[in-house]
Amino acid sequence: MTTALTVCLAQLDFTVGAIHENTAKILATIRRHGNDNDIIVFPELAITGYPPEDLLLRDDLYAAVDNAVEQISAAASDAVVIVGHPQRVGEETFNSLSVLHRGECLQRYHKQRLPNYDTFDEQRYFIPGQQNAVFEWQGQRIGLLICEDLWHPLPLQRLLEDDIDWVLSINASPYQLDKHEQRLSVLQQRSSECGKPIVYLNNCGGQDELVFDGHSLVLASDGSVAAELPHCQTLCASIEINAASVQLVGEWPTAASTLSSQALVYQALVLAVRDYVQKNGFNGVVLGLSGGIDSALTLALAVDALGADKVRAVMMPFKYTSSMSLEDAEQQARQLAVDYQVVSIEPMFNAFMQQLQTLFGDAEVDTTEENLQSRCRGVLLMALSNKHRALVLTTGNKSEMAVGYATLYGDMCGGFAPLKDVPKLLVFELAKYRNSLSPCIPERVISRPPSAELAPDQVDEDSLPPYSDLDRILALYVEQDWSVTDIIAAGFNDQDVRRIVRLVDLNEYKRKQSAVGPKITTRNFGRDRRYPITSHYRYELQRQDA
Amino acid sequence: MTTALTVCLAQLDFTVGAIHENTAKILATIRRHGNDNDIIVFPELAITGYPPEDLLLRDDLYAAVDNAVEQISAAASDAVVIVGHPQRVGEETFNSLSVLHRGECLQRYHKQRLPNYDTFDEQRYFIPGQQNAVFEWQGQRIGLLICEDLWHPLPLQRLLEDDIDWVLSINASPYQLDKHEQRLSVLQQRSSECGKPIVYLNNCGGQDELVFDGHSLVLASDGSVAAELPHCQTLCASIEINAASVQLVGEWPTAASTLSSQALVYQALVLAVRDYVQKNGFNGVVLGLSGGIDSALTLALAVDALGADKVRAVMMPFKYTSSMSLEDAEQQARQLAVDYQVVSIEPMFNAFMQQLQTLFGDAEVDTTEENLQSRCRGVLLMALSNKHRALVLTTGNKSEMAVGYATLYGDMCGGFAPLKDVPKLLVFELAKYRNSLSPCIPERVISRPPSAELAPDQVDEDSLPPYSDLDRILALYVEQDWSVTDIIAAGFNDQDVRRIVRLVDLNEYKRKQSAVGPKITTRNFGRDRRYPITSHYRYELQRQDA
Repeated sequence: MTTALTVCLAQLDFTVGAIHENTAKILATIRRHGNDNDIIVFPELAITGYPPEDLLLRDDLYAAVDNAVEQISAAASDAVVIVGHPQRVGEETFNSLSVLHRGECLQRYHKQRLPNYDTFDEQRYFIPGQQNAVFEWQGQRIGLLICEDLWHPLPLQRLLEDDIDWVLSINASPYQLDKHEQRLSVLQQRSSECGKPIVYLNNCGGQDELVFDGHSLVLASDGSVAAELPHCQTLCASIEINAASVQLVGEWPTAASTLSSQALVYQALVLAVRDYVQKNGFNGVVLGLSGGIDSALTLALAVDALGADKVRAVMMPFKYTSSMSLEDAEQQARQLAVDYQVVSIEPMFNAFMQQLQTLFGDAEVDTTEENLQSRCRGVLLMALSNKHRALVLTTGNKSEMAVGYATLYGDMCGGFAPLKDVPKLLVFELAKYRNSLSPCIPERVISRPPSAELAPDQVDEDSLPPYSDLDRILALYVEQDWSVTDIIAAGFNDQDVRRIVRLVDLNEYKRKQSAVGPKITTRNFGRDRRYPITSHYRYELQRQDA
Repeated sequence: MTTALTVCLAQLDFTVGAIHENTAKILATIRRHGNDNDIIVFPELAITGYPPEDLLLRDDLYAAVDNAVEQISAAASDAVVIVGHPQRVGEETFNSLSVLHRGECLQRYHKQRLPNYDTFDEQRYFIPGQQNAVFEWQGQRIGLLICEDLWHPLPLQRLLEDDIDWVLSINASPYQLDKHEQRLSVLQQRSSECGKPIVYLNNCGGQDELVFDGHSLVLASDGSVAAELPHCQTLCASIEINAASVQLVGEWPTAASTLSSQALVYQALVLAVRDYVQKNGFNGVVLGLSGGIDSALTLALAVDALGADKVRAVMMPFKYTSSMSLEDAEQQARQLAVDYQVVSIEPMFNAFMQQLQTLFGDAEVDTTEENLQSRCRGVLLMALSNKHRALVLTTGNKSEMAVGYATLYGDMCGGFAPLKDVPKLLVFELAKYRNSLSPCIPERVISRPPSAELAPDQVDEDSLPPYSDLDRILALYVEQDWSVTDIIAAGFNDQDVRRIVRLVDLNEYKRKQSAVGPKITTRNFGRDRRYPITSHYRYELQRQDA
């Protein structure tokens, strides 16, 4: 039996484009862990961060990456370093992995399966590798794979012909609900095909609309989970591994799989907010509190991500704002100890209406006046943002974004939308979860019927079906591409379904100008779902042609 | 010698998703031209419009497309119909072309080369065809290709082994500056390789940020241009063709190649505005006039696209607005006979400042107050838009969008940005071109130094290098991916280059929330250039690593 190799899993956060910082982080990790490990592993495209998008089209990027690879290779360390980076070879670009040691590149592997669906565009940048790569070290043969390679049987099958002892996969796998279970199931499938240990290392951090949740895994040769790194936390941890066994080295943190699904989502959102704010160099955030549940939850996320001293909340009442809303907003702000101000939008609203009078003539009151209220609030928040260099968090949820219940340049103002991919029912669940840690959202904010308070006694469910139906219809149409006919056949009200689908179709123009926000479902509004604004695709057609 | 076939080129506009309307248009064309032609040809993906984006992921779309293909095939006509559409075959989806006649599909071809760069994402949806397809009719053998196929030598080379008489390529090729020359050069290259006539049919119409300019071509077997359809106009025209000759049938319109490059761009922008407004069902447009050249040119485009009765212009002065600006805006509106109003933003601005006083404390005046002016204007325009169901045209140009000289939720408010991809120097050229048709932009609007008029005596070039330098630096950095080092080496001021590049990098967040606008350069801000917002890629790094 061969002795075991000690392998350090560096589940760290690599910022996109930060070649210099990322390299420094890799070098610091090598200095710290290089003497106690045989191998240190970093995630997919660690040197550039993931996804670098069209930075990958810049020639100057590759000069910088080559230089970084050289620096890492030259690091004086006993440990072999395995790291992901883009690699130019002549005119071709690969998504690669290098095995570096004492100034040499011992092995290089080019990713064979390039995802080009959902959030991924790898075929825009890379060409697929054609070769297996096995790295032999101290008598052990390690089969090398990158992310998507492992989601298909073939790359591993081909590796098995090369007589490997275990498999190493480096990843940049974004979080979504139940993603961990999906990964585990794929890994166990591969494990059953190969009967070898599999080391699966993931990236960890927020990047625009993606959250990489870490949650790296090591499977023993029998497919059982031998090691699990935390969810949404950066850290380094080591294992001892050979073809027959996997052992943890030192103290390991509690496994993430003990967390509830609400906790997993909540932590992913916190990480997303923190990284967006910090990586983009803001002093903090500002947001409008309405007294409703969306802004209440957003406030809690912001405080948990950044600390109360980095968060400003503003309540901007108008004549339709209830006293209950004013009380609840104040209570939320007080409970979380954030800076809180109340500023009426009445004078601005009236000034606009006065000036618009001549232009509007005797046109009837319609949603124009509702939008105007929302836009006065947006302008106010943006002024605070500009003056304090604080990012505006916008508070809309996925259900609203889907049907367009949001005002462009009004409550949609903001740089980041923490709840953009969170359906309303999940907003309620997350609020309850957050209260279970420490109470911060007044109970009646959760229990009262949601209202935009843009007209007297307005309630969301006056103009929308109950959220329980709405969210299910939206999931079928938006995330699963069901036809209108099939959704109705599943038991929903015909008119409701047609109306909701029509609203989703018509409101693409709003979503195109919306702030980015973290993906947490199987299909977010953003990189996952790329719809034309100009589109005459309508359910009537499908029906007629059915 | 074989007799000639009469082929009708249907350079028409197919709206994305409008399967029913598009099919009706195809059927009407067949009714009108079916008896006088042997073959009628429609563009790439005519049935769904191009690009359908993620509509292609919907199963119900393929049922509707199959139904459309059947209807077209069943049209009682002597002519064979050749039409592009997506095609599901089992689990696989192709970008296909069908040859239809009297209820039968005589031939089907799947596109072999799927572009996945610049604006194109075809590998997200389609898998490449592997087979040649030749359609034989009345003794002539026609080699079939789709768009990108012709930009590579191999698909045509393989067709030549099949003993073809001429080549037919159906396309959805978006306009950009000098695109026609590029197409002609590629076609002539292919022609020199094959020595056969080439029929190149393009789509014609605006679709979000793309303009398909038509400008279809027929090359004779010696590579000379035998026929050229107009630029940005829909029409049907016929040729008689065999391996040896190409003849025009009936009256043909004047060739587009007689137009100046300014005229070509101008017409593309007009088509883009018209199609966006009409296809999205707006009653007209509204825009803010500043007295400057960008809004003046946008106004002219809007009037040329829609007619004066569909255009409202508003001048929204503040204390920094010069009397010259007021005069010039009024003159523009009068000359183009559009509805024109003047509404001061002073009362709204003052109401905001009053309410913000307590929040700002004794913070110094900065760009916050400038942005506030711009946002008061934006809110006003949006109120008009809402009340009149008129689309707001935003007036910013590419140079401004590049460096972020625009206010988010202020002058960036709007659904369509006609000048979004037009650099400032080209704005001047287009203004002069438009005046050469009929004077509508006062001379001094063109000759005075551009100013945002957000502060006393403000002039753009106080804070930016001269537009002649700015636009060249931007073209090198944004469109050609030059490194900072190389741009400086080309003779530009070191500090200017660094500052501009830094501004471009920092302002991605604004562009991500900007209105769509027509692509006219080799790389627009939009589908062509996909940059992360969160990015630490900075020129300093490139320098250090150089």
